[in-house]
Amino acid sequence: MEMVLDDAYFMKQALVEAEKALEKGEVPVGAVVVIQQKIIARGHNLTEQLQDVTAHAEMQAITSAAHFLNGKYLKGCTLYVTLEPCVMCAGALFWSQLDRVVFAASDPKRGFLTQKAQLHPKTRFTQGVMLHQSEQLLQQFFADKRS
Amino acid sequence: MEMVLDDAYFMKQALVEAEKALEKGEVPVGAVVVIQQKIIARGHNLTEQLQDVTAHAEMQAITSAAHFLNGKYLKGCTLYVTLEPCVMCAGALFWSQLDRVVFAASDPKRGFLTQKAQLHPKTRFTQGVMLHQSEQLLQQFFADKRS
Repeated sequence: MEMVLDDAYFMKQALVEAEKALEKGEVPVGAVVVIQQKIIARGHNLTEQLQDVTAHAEMQAITSAAHFLNGKYLKGCTLYVTLEPCVMCAGALFWSQLDRVVFAASDPKRGFLTQKAQLHPKTRFTQGVMLHQSEQLLQQFFADKRS
Repeated sequence: MEMVLDDAYFMKQALVEAEKALEKGEVPVGAVVVIQQKIIARGHNLTEQLQDVTAHAEMQAITSAAHFLNGKYLKGCTLYVTLEPCVMCAGALFWSQLDRVVFAASDPKRGFLTQKAQLHPKTRFTQGVMLHQSEQLLQQFFADKRS
């Protein structure tokens, strides 16, 4: 029997990446890139460790997936990310022309929806998958920061 | 006598980077990051060579400048780039909080002005410096492509 893996399954894997970021004292955001039910790239936020504003989870996952595919267009791919992509990441996702973006928590301040940045016309998106798990990690991070 | 270097001087250095991209068969875009009249980072478009949509000149220059400064915020810095930044690069420039962005040619299709992506409120920008030199390089690239 072939098991069909769903959005929740892959978002859990993105959450595993977000937890790695949390352990490193980074804002906990994680991402995976999937093609034909296989994870081909993983990334988590490393902006503090690398001291580099471009080191968002999505950017690393996009670069890593392109390397795996040996091509810069991520056609047929889905990116799962635990937080709504920012303008920079949405801009990178636009160029990548991937099939689909799935995110968990919303970012009403810097997220691409509020900021009206566009994904590629070919790219569909879904929001709110494993929303609470992602929000809990983010809340934990900011609570730890304050205490 | 101390020589004060102007925008045209630094944009010429960004054009040198754009020429390197052209020689490699890349869309010719180059960038430099300057602080206190000194170039601390250089970059040129490498999206084809690296097969990576994130490898724009600006992204590489931002990462390189942050590495030089050992800090992710590029306060006090000016980025010179030969083409108007796209949404992705404008998003990265937003996070970097640099002082100023100077660009040469406009990109009416994918440029951040048309796309209404915002730079950081602290960041000023100037356009049109060495405009013709940059346009000439871009026209040369697209003419070579067609022939």
